[in-house]
Order: sequence, then C-alpha cells, then structure tokens
Amino acid sequence: MTALTPDSSGRFLPVIENMHASGDVILVCEHASNAFPAPWGNLGLSEAQQQAHIAWDPGALGLMRALAARLDATTIHATVSRLIYDCNRAPDMPGAMPARSELHDIPGNAQITTEDRAARTAAIYLPFHDALHGLIAQRIALGRRPVIVTVHSFTPIYFGQPRAVEFGVIHDADPALPRAILAAAEAQSGLVCGLNAPYSAADDVTHTLRLHATPYGLANAMLEIRNDLIATAAAEEAMADRLAPCLAAALTALTQTG
Amino acid sequence: MTALTPDSSGRFLPVIENMHASGDVILVCEHASNAFPAPWGNLGLSEAQQQAHIAWDPGALGLMRALAARLDATTIHATVSRLIYDCNRAPDMPGAMPARSELHDIPGNAQITTEDRAARTAAIYLPFHDALHGLIAQRIALGRRPVIVTVHSFTPIYFGQPRAVEFGVIHDADPALPRAILAAAEAQSGLVCGLNAPYSAADDVTHTLRLHATPYGLANAMLEIRNDLIATAAAEEAMADRLAPCLAAALTALTQTG
Repeated sequence: MTALTPDSSGRFLPVIENMHASGDVILVCEHASNAFPAPWGNLGLSEAQQQAHIAWDPGALGLMRALAARLDATTIHATVSRLIYDCNRAPDMPGAMPARSELHDIPGNAQITTEDRAARTAAIYLPFHDALHGLIAQRIALGRRPVIVTVHSFTPIYFGQPRAVEFGVIHDADPALPRAILAAAEAQSGLVCGLNAPYSAADDVTHTLRLHATPYGLANAMLEIRNDLIATAAAEEAMADRLAPCLAAALTALTQTG
Repeated sequence: MTALTPDSSGRFLPVIENMHASGDVILVCEHASNAFPAPWGNLGLSEAQQQAHIAWDPGALGLMRALAARLDATTIHATVSRLIYDCNRAPDMPGAMPARSELHDIPGNAQITTEDRAARTAAIYLPFHDALHGLIAQRIALGRRPVIVTVHSFTPIYFGQPRAVEFGVIHDADPALPRAILAAAEAQSGLVCGLNAPYSAADDVTHTLRLHATPYGLANAMLEIRNDLIATAAAEEAMADRLAPCLAAALTALTQTG
C-alpha cells in the first residue's frame, strides 16, 4: 500500500471526486480506507485484521464510484481507517476510536490520551466534515438542493451470526428518501432488503446525516450493502447496475410527491 | 472604523476569545459587527443605516464579553455585517444576504449573482461555522460537554410597533435550557421575559443552534436582549450582572435534573 501522508498542517484531507457533477446526489463514504498512517500506525493489529471489515467497509468505495458514474454524482471519502478515527461518529462516541470492534481488541486504542483523542479529531474528523460542509453549503448557495447519501458495507457474519439482509436503507430524522429507495429496491433489485437494517439511527450510525443533511432539511439516506455481494470490482459494477436505477427512481418519486 | 481585511485565502475569519476558558459555555455572536469591508463595501447604505440594527445587533458583542467574564466562557463572533452575510442563516435562506431588512432596501443585495452568493458563503459563512465546529468538536473530544448560547439584541420598535418584551429566550429542538433560563430570569432578573420572543425557530433564527448543538445533543439556547437596555458599555455590564446569575442557575438546574 502506498504510504499515506498528511498535509502541511498534519491533516488527512478527504478525497473529493467528480466535484462539478451535474447530478443532485453527493455520495459519502466514511469507511472507504484501511490505511493506517503514522503517527498512529497499525494500532497493533495483524495484517488480516487490517484487511477485515473492522478496519473499513470493503467494497464501499468501489460501489460508490460505480454509483457516481451512473448518477453523475460528486463523491467524498475518508482516507484513513475507521479504527484510527471513524468519521461517522462524533468525538465522544465510543465507536469514534474504538477499543474493541466486534470480536477484536484494538490495542492501539486501549488507552488513548485526551491529547491523542483531540489530535485525531483535528487531523481526521474535522477536515472530513469541513470539506463535506463546504460542498453542501456551496451547492445550497448556488440554489441547488443536494441529496446526501452515505455508502457503507456490512459483514455477512457478525458475532458468529449470519445476516440474511443484503441491502439495508437507514434513515435519520427524515425517512422519505429511505422509504422511496426501499420501495424501488424491493420492486426491482432482486435483493433481500430491509429498512433500518442491519443497523438504525439508534446505533449512532447516522452521525454524518445528522450533522449535514438534517440541519439543512436535505433529503438523505444511508445505504448498507452486504460486503460478500461487492467483493470484486466486477461485483461492485453489477451492484451499481442494480442500485443506481433504484436511487434514480426514488429521487424522481420524491420530487413528484415533495 | 479600522479597515477589515480578509486572510490570504480571502476569508473573513471569526474572532475567538478566551479560548482556554474553564467554563462549559461557548457564547456565540453572529451579529457582532457592522463592518462593510471590500469587495462588497457599504451595499449602497447610508451611514445611519450602517449604524442601525439592520446591520448588526448593537450591544450584543459587549454584553457577550461581559457575560463571558462572569461565566469564564469562550466566545466567538463574526467580523462582518449581517447584511453582507448573516452567519445565523443557511445560504439558501432569504435572510442570509437580504434584499430588504425591516423598512430598508439593501441596494447591494438587490441583484446578487450566484457567483457572489457562493463567494460570500465561502468567505464569511463557512469560516465562521468551521471555526465554531472546531471549538465544539475539540471540547467533545476532550470529554467536555459544551453548552452553546447565542447572544443577540433586538430593536425596541419594529415596523413601527413598540416591543414590550425585554429579554427573550429562544429554543431549537431542545427546550430544556431555554426554559431553565427563563425560569431563573423571571424569578430574579426584574426583566419582562418571553419564551420564543420576539422570534422563534419558525422564523429560521436558530440556524447556528441547529447546525452545531442539536446534532451533538448539546444543551443550547438563543438569548435576545432589547437593544435600548444595552446601549452603553455601562449598560452592557449592568445587564451582564443581571443575566449571568440566571444562566449559572439554569446550568445548575439542568445538571441536577439531567
């Protein structure tokens, strides 16, 4: 893996792609990366643990890019592993810098000093959210109404239990877009779908939506795809072929009823 | 007035004072300034209009600083007139760059290009909110729970009608702190008090609270003081003597019931 280095201010900036897209959707991938850069390094994890779903959402970045191509969407993704800082969690949430994830202890997070918590927040969390906020505020200033969709993947087996759901749509305060996506996906995707599955906002997984979409009254949704269904580049493209029409249909339905 | 100039990136950064305060409160003053810097200049307004309440909240900055001294609070305030960009409004709200304010047309805002709307958002709105977000996230990362209180003043005569209320407390989603402040002020301030007066969240005046406090579940309130009661430095100090104990009592009450 190429070494990831911070900018001159010590920040790990997110990556924005397709900045001048004409579509309404901004796709967000907080768990795109399993990079473990200095000064934190691998947190004492094995190579296998660094490749596992605890470190990132395998397939989510590729799926997001494939969706962006089909929807002409702007994308933003984090460049550092969620185990160093999970950008979909507020700095006071246990999951922001977790000492344990599913079955795995995270040695480098067992004893984090307050200084290190503040440093990770400044280096990773704030640049990510400032960049996303800038994208959204600029669109709004130009008279556009961006739609915020976060893209995640989940492990097929969690705490030893298989998960039957293949595609979950999760809402924060406003369920309109998630319900419309779910209706389209149930009608046409052929996937086993669930609303607020395998997680819901009660599990603190909608932080990005809560921070950026809800205050501006923007339509928003969180997508969760079972990662065994997007395990190769070809599978990511095939999944985008199934899901992009569902998102497009949902946005059309929302425009017509809104 | 000293000429106000942007930083090397063209941004008008807010001012943060008492950064390392030990108190829980972060005081925010979006309407602290009636500066009309280039490239926008005075927007075609007379000197009297630039001094009037349409351009800023007279007395609010001085009152905020006097409250900060008594509560050991950190403060943040905008440095540009609300008529160039009102930092308590989202970029798509009419009040963000208003073409009219109360009885006054704002010639320089009559025909704003989309490029200028985006430029003002980038130069004034985003730096203000990024700085406030940074303050809040850092406190949260350190295990503290900041309390967000915005400080405003209002004109005693609006559209020709006198206003009887002297001190208003306004809430966004969570009314707990505003109700506690109101109870304390009614008991001990001697002021004519009102909840959600002279404005309420329905008038889009709680943007800062909605963007920064509500997503993190932080206690928050908006204070409105009639500006004839804080028209001199001595009056600002006297008002702080009346209101600081009310805020302190409300925070204590909230801690005991929370």
